[in-house]
Amino acid sequence: MLSVQRSAPAEPAREPGEPRVPLLERFTGMRDRTVALCAPLSREDHVVQPMPDASPAKWHLAHTTWFFEAFVLDGARFDPAFEFLFNSYYEAVGPRVPRTRRGMLTRPGLDRIHAYRAAIDHRIARALGDGALDDAALARLELGLHHEQQHQELILTDAKYLLGTQPLAPAYRDLPRGAPAAPAPLGWRSEPGGIVEIGAPRAGFAFDNERPRHGVLLPPYRIASRPIANAEVLAFIAEGGYRDPRLWLSDGWQLAQAERWEAPLYWIARDGDHALYDLAGVRTVDPGETACHLSLYEADAIARWLGARLPTEAEWEHGAASAPLTGHFADTDRLHPERAPVTEGERASAGEGPRTALARGNPGGMTTPGRLAQLFGDVWEWTQSSYAAYPGFQPLGGALGEYNGKFMSGQYVLRGGSCLTPAGHIRPSYRNFFPASARWQMTGVRLAQDL
Amino acid sequence: MLSVQRSAPAEPAREPGEPRVPLLERFTGMRDRTVALCAPLSREDHVVQPMPDASPAKWHLAHTTWFFEAFVLDGARFDPAFEFLFNSYYEAVGPRVPRTRRGMLTRPGLDRIHAYRAAIDHRIARALGDGALDDAALARLELGLHHEQQHQELILTDAKYLLGTQPLAPAYRDLPRGAPAAPAPLGWRSEPGGIVEIGAPRAGFAFDNERPRHGVLLPPYRIASRPIANAEVLAFIAEGGYRDPRLWLSDGWQLAQAERWEAPLYWIARDGDHALYDLAGVRTVDPGETACHLSLYEADAIARWLGARLPTEAEWEHGAASAPLTGHFADTDRLHPERAPVTEGERASAGEGPRTALARGNPGGMTTPGRLAQLFGDVWEWTQSSYAAYPGFQPLGGALGEYNGKFMSGQYVLRGGSCLTPAGHIRPSYRNFFPASARWQMTGVRLAQDL
Amino acid sequence: MLSVQRSAPAEPAREPGEPRVPLLERFTGMRDRTVALCAPLSREDHVVQPMPDASPAKWHLAHTTWFFEAFVLDGARFDPAFEFLFNSYYEAVGPRVPRTRRGMLTRPGLDRIHAYRAAIDHRIARALGDGALDDAALARLELGLHHEQQHQELILTDAKYLLGTQPLAPAYRDLPRGAPAAPAPLGWRSEPGGIVEIGAPRAGFAFDNERPRHGVLLPPYRIASRPIANAEVLAFIAEGGYRDPRLWLSDGWQLAQAERWEAPLYWIARDGDHALYDLAGVRTVDPGETACHLSLYEADAIARWLGARLPTEAEWEHGAASAPLTGHFADTDRLHPERAPVTEGERASAGEGPRTALARGNPGGMTTPGRLAQLFGDVWEWTQSSYAAYPGFQPLGGALGEYNGKFMSGQYVLRGGSCLTPAGHIRPSYRNFFPASARWQMTGVRLAQDL
Amino acid sequence: MLSVQRSAPAEPAREPGEPRVPLLERFTGMRDRTVALCAPLSREDHVVQPMPDASPAKWHLAHTTWFFEAFVLDGARFDPAFEFLFNSYYEAVGPRVPRTRRGMLTRPGLDRIHAYRAAIDHRIARALGDGALDDAALARLELGLHHEQQHQELILTDAKYLLGTQPLAPAYRDLPRGAPAAPAPLGWRSEPGGIVEIGAPRAGFAFDNERPRHGVLLPPYRIASRPIANAEVLAFIAEGGYRDPRLWLSDGWQLAQAERWEAPLYWIARDGDHALYDLAGVRTVDPGETACHLSLYEADAIARWLGARLPTEAEWEHGAASAPLTGHFADTDRLHPERAPVTEGERASAGEGPRTALARGNPGGMTTPGRLAQLFGDVWEWTQSSYAAYPGFQPLGGALGEYNGKFMSGQYVLRGGSCLTPAGHIRPSYRNFFPASARWQMTGVRLAQDL
Repeated sequence: MLSVQRSAPAEPAREPGEPRVPLLERFTGMRDRTVALCAPLSREDHVVQPMPDASPAKWHLAHTTWFFEAFVLDGARFDPAFEFLFNSYYEAVGPRVPRTRRGMLTRPGLDRIHAYRAAIDHRIARALGDGALDDAALARLELGLHHEQQHQELILTDAKYLLGTQPLAPAYRDLPRGAPAAPAPLGWRSEPGGIVEIGAPRAGFAFDNERPRHGVLLPPYRIASRPIANAEVLAFIAEGGYRDPRLWLSDGWQLAQAERWEAPLYWIARDGDHALYDLAGVRTVDPGETACHLSLYEADAIARWLGARLPTEAEWEHGAASAPLTGHFADTDRLHPERAPVTEGERASAGEGPRTALARGNPGGMTTPGRLAQLFGDVWEWTQSSYAAYPGFQPLGGALGEYNGKFMSGQYVLRGGSCLTPAGHIRPSYRNFFPASARWQMTGVRLAQDL
Repeated sequence: MLSVQRSAPAEPAREPGEPRVPLLERFTGMRDRTVALCAPLSREDHVVQPMPDASPAKWHLAHTTWFFEAFVLDGARFDPAFEFLFNSYYEAVGPRVPRTRRGMLTRPGLDRIHAYRAAIDHRIARALGDGALDDAALARLELGLHHEQQHQELILTDAKYLLGTQPLAPAYRDLPRGAPAAPAPLGWRSEPGGIVEIGAPRAGFAFDNERPRHGVLLPPYRIASRPIANAEVLAFIAEGGYRDPRLWLSDGWQLAQAERWEAPLYWIARDGDHALYDLAGVRTVDPGETACHLSLYEADAIARWLGARLPTEAEWEHGAASAPLTGHFADTDRLHPERAPVTEGERASAGEGPRTALARGNPGGMTTPGRLAQLFGDVWEWTQSSYAAYPGFQPLGGALGEYNGKFMSGQYVLRGGSCLTPAGHIRPSYRNFFPASARWQMTGVRLAQDL
Repeated sequence: MLSVQRSAPAEPAREPGEPRVPLLERFTGMRDRTVALCAPLSREDHVVQPMPDASPAKWHLAHTTWFFEAFVLDGARFDPAFEFLFNSYYEAVGPRVPRTRRGMLTRPGLDRIHAYRAAIDHRIARALGDGALDDAALARLELGLHHEQQHQELILTDAKYLLGTQPLAPAYRDLPRGAPAAPAPLGWRSEPGGIVEIGAPRAGFAFDNERPRHGVLLPPYRIASRPIANAEVLAFIAEGGYRDPRLWLSDGWQLAQAERWEAPLYWIARDGDHALYDLAGVRTVDPGETACHLSLYEADAIARWLGARLPTEAEWEHGAASAPLTGHFADTDRLHPERAPVTEGERASAGEGPRTALARGNPGGMTTPGRLAQLFGDVWEWTQSSYAAYPGFQPLGGALGEYNGKFMSGQYVLRGGSCLTPAGHIRPSYRNFFPASARWQMTGVRLAQDL
Repeated sequence: MLSVQRSAPAEPAREPGEPRVPLLERFTGMRDRTVALCAPLSREDHVVQPMPDASPAKWHLAHTTWFFEAFVLDGARFDPAFEFLFNSYYEAVGPRVPRTRRGMLTRPGLDRIHAYRAAIDHRIARALGDGALDDAALARLELGLHHEQQHQELILTDAKYLLGTQPLAPAYRDLPRGAPAAPAPLGWRSEPGGIVEIGAPRAGFAFDNERPRHGVLLPPYRIASRPIANAEVLAFIAEGGYRDPRLWLSDGWQLAQAERWEAPLYWIARDGDHALYDLAGVRTVDPGETACHLSLYEADAIARWLGARLPTEAEWEHGAASAPLTGHFADTDRLHPERAPVTEGERASAGEGPRTALARGNPGGMTTPGRLAQLFGDVWEWTQSSYAAYPGFQPLGGALGEYNGKFMSGQYVLRGGSCLTPAGHIRPSYRNFFPASARWQMTGVRLAQDL
């Protein structure tokens, strides 16, 4: 049973005044967008699995379709073998191809997967037209749409890993890129703490892990005005941050040594200079751009080096509660984080190093009180909160109970969505989660400090 | 700089009215007890490392001595090589033998380690007699005593693993064992929630990770009257708990499959019956005894199977705040958890299965309101809280800053101490921590539920 | 410098009376055949690497082209990056993509690889037409043709592994298959031993590892009239051969346990029956067919179980010296070993089990003296000879010296070619080599015995 | 059934004129010597297993005793558990402690193992005194004595690895060491080749793998007058031999890279100089000493670099057939290879580098014709021969058939014994065998060349 069922009819989050889009139209648009995201990939790109955590695009195309077939439709299956091939992890549904072997599936070929998509889309459309779906099925259809968006982001992160780690490092496609610049100054917003509410309200769509909404007692704290930029990462590298164990969590230090980390993922040392691969190809690192592809270990070490820490997810969500739900999402079609906006007042202090800015920030709070840039979009922001159940958490019923709850160990919560996240997918209460070692996701760092 | 320094003169926690023991006497007694714990081990037992996480007794004997030499004493070292050999993990102090190679150190031999202990003990005693230690050194000496206690417990857990996993499974020594019995009934104590304070107060000794004391907002909840007993584990096994993925966290299920878990560590399948190894040898599982050697994954699965969950560390500490600091610690010299005490009223309901008891508990709360048995001692109780910094956390200064803080990822908090913990080592605010996979520690499960 | 250079003009082995085919025609035909072998594969099939030892078809297409470009042509490279991408193992030529990462190369795409082939083919054709290649270059061109044939066989073995180990086990293409039958009787041919010559003669093409021709002293021995058939393997399985350590080499037993071998590779247990996957799909095991996809460990265990042993490579080559160079090669287009031919005399003894036949064989030698069936083609036959240099071995000069010599450790010699080997590629002196653990090659077992 | 049984009464190889030592005296002396070899080891040294291939001394003490108990004596076992604990690899005898877990056996302790030895020794002595052993039992007793000698050598090699790879690198004991010197010149003895006989004659003790004696056809070749010395290894290092893939077998190069080999095992880089650890401690490398602790991969690379190759085992044995069975064995109590003796004539050419000497050797053969120094003792000499069965090989009957035969894959033959081999253990036909990667044995390199 879906959480939406316990509360309200299936429907996406809407801004006030935003018109309600008919469900069939939403469904069709969502499905088409997934296919469009794969269009720049060659047929070969669709099939290879570059590492266990990154699935082939063909698998994403099929798995998202299987989700609708398995959880929304009744009746005969398109191909009985697909249950085994394209179930991701639902133990209650049955056995499946091990995650590490998804890249072995050269068959069925891409054409057959597109046929599968078309067939299921047709059946869903007909069922919607016929009014054949009851509330529970509609709730699962709604969940399927959000699920599809999650895989849209994964298609991009996984393709980036596939393309960016092979010798020729080909671009995904041509994308607009700006001129390098200095980052916006890094300021702070102070919060008095106290009891705050976090989590999704009872009405409207949310994943089960965002509920119930509940109170949390926050200490006084302050939170940074923007995520850290490449300028800060370049300084961390230059000052030996990747070689100083005192800055690192013990597990992180061991991993960094074993894998010889010297910079974020996708950075390339080039004659003393730093370049990076992004979905448009290789170019020199822009110090002003928001930093990305950092593990929690690196995020934590950089924060410590800057005399700060990562925020808790409650601190983050409280900070974000009053912010407009806007940002650079995948629809801005840059597919890389941008530079935080710089205000007039900030231009005066441009050129200061990050530690100076942090020190200055101490007494007076931030230059532009209240403004927290880039909370939504650009980069997923690591929190120091382990991914765990909220008090009173109720997983979905049946096999869908495996959607979130069983992953509540060994992972950290990330917030806010990224430049690869579909617009409209994110809420302030949205909880993403990855292991502390993950670097291939579009992850970044926002700082916090105790007051 | 030690946290004790920031607050109060170095001194152990004392119950009101308890006489102050002179520091030299405490030091000598502590050091002697470590040696006494190793006495039942053969010389061969002292040197072998049975797995990366379990260190040889000889290494414990040397490392605890090195701690005093490195952090309390000045002047010439007993043997300059010992810095490399017996530093555990302090990166700031220098390189060291990898943790996985501690068992390769056949040299120096046991006699030389005992000579090392004697020499350092003599120097510490002289320094105490001469009043040569300043407040900072005294604070580090105090820390060294608590550190020694932590290794006293590890000597037992590691020796148990060494002895219990070799073919002959020899006993550590003869220990008193009672007759099998049914467990005490499992009841509940309800808590209204609200803002509660947790963490160590400013005065008195505590590790840096227990501070600062701070408020936490708790939901209404209830907590079980005792940890789960072998009877519950036997039922979990009998009803297929180890074979049902729906009960398990995803990581736990994968590990349980890979390592073919079918029962807690040290349990032995014997002709359809269950035996277990404890430090006194092998005997039939007693259903009444408190269950132990469970990973967090098993703890979580058993809780889910019983319709409950693990408590948070704040819930646990709040429940424990009013309890007397007594229990079965290592000084009771049983070295295995006991049966929870059974009251007269409880005897009436004896024989009910755990799920019946849980159901009955729902409306009426627990039979003996307020009584939470075995909070301290017997078994370390897993909480669902990941090990993380408290708001405002300040690690110790210098190399000792590595004592706790750098392990704050990938681990869970355990509370209350165990039958292997030295008496006097535990506080309500005491935070132990191990990975979710750990089974060789004296770990058990107390249940909680949302209200 | 090629060995052919040391002896004779570049030219393929020809049977007496066989017309000499013009080199350009041979080149073109060879290159076309490689492309034709890939035609049944989907584009997706071309790119995936199912295990470290099995390369993607696209890589084979490119690497064989690179070989001609690197070793025969001068001048500008088609694409400078291809040196890094498609060098297989020539350390002297420079760095290259690790063998285990060949399947990550989704780019360059298949179309570009075909363009690469066309461009190099064109340049070679023009150079041949212009007479621009000196003797050394012609010798390397000749080597390139034989090299291409080796990869033609690998394209089939690697595609078989890719297709046969994925869940749907699709056929490579439709292929003719006969009705099941009993195998031909297993007889013996006795050899008196003495000094025999093995190795390639000085004239004609041969790989460096086949030379120099030299004498070997053989003991009296006998060699089986045919390779073992599935009937023998079925009996080995039925009598517990895969569960009896006394039959196995120690390394083989450990591997068989670790990988849970219970039958040859590609066999599928089906309701007590045995099926197998071959390039035409899945069908019931035919007891009469020659057995294949056996490691040396299995070959050795089966031989021991039958009271026999594997032949040495000298015994094999001596036995093969007088045999006609004919057999079921890839051009017969069955791509699976056939049944050994049955003579009239043999039909009488049909139905005997293999051990009976072996016992009867002891006194009287073989039923049809002198006839050794299936020496060439059908299956590569394991010998008990480790792959090592012949006395006086001279590797090729320059980077081509790495062609064979550096692999002379940890491998065993196989002889005779298989049903996947291009016709015309094999000589009696031909030495193939694989590790004892290899099962994905078209390998089988011919028995020998001491006299 | 033992091979000795098929041929002659159990008895050690004796030189003509050597008096026959009574069997009981031989048995007692052999057993005492094993204990004496362990005397310099501490009790801790007896129990630790520093790597899977190196067993603890305590295990050697027990296993050699078990061999006599299991294969010679009848009746009640000393301790039924010892079958499981101290069986090395005899599958036919039953299950056993995995080889990798031998170091976990802290119990039974060393005292009990000595008691086990005393008890079995007593029973064997009584049985010999009573004449209670039949010919088959006496043959197995004889085998047990040779088996004991093999483990005497392993006790030294394994203790060396244990002591030499721990941080303090303690000496096994004080041992005489000479002053550094230049090596003897390296000359050659030419052999015309032809049919030669190798293998053990039918009479006298030999392992089953040395039989049957048989003819081998050898090419003309020459063999070096001495094994290579540290001077040659130093030159190989100085000229970049460890960094040049063209010198190496492919498997060897990969291993050398993965394990970062830059010198033989036990060599220590010290300020541009080379030191080594031997059983007497650490000292500067002596260029004149025979080089040791080289894998076959290094041996092969050094030979290639010197324009030579490793001999086959038949070449070696033929060269050794006429040599006196004398050399520096373990009884010379140096436990490290010595310098090859230098004759008057050789002193003239002292100071030449190895490649000069090799070049000069080409035309004129060796300076002192016929003299091959250090064939027996000093170092085991790698041959290029894979360890395989001789034509007509018959393994021993019953469980003892596993003694040798099942290891006939993946290993190379070494010849001649070493400075750690007990005197009297070696024969010209003696075949030792280890994987190409093995470095912890006392292995060295004698060169050969084709003529």
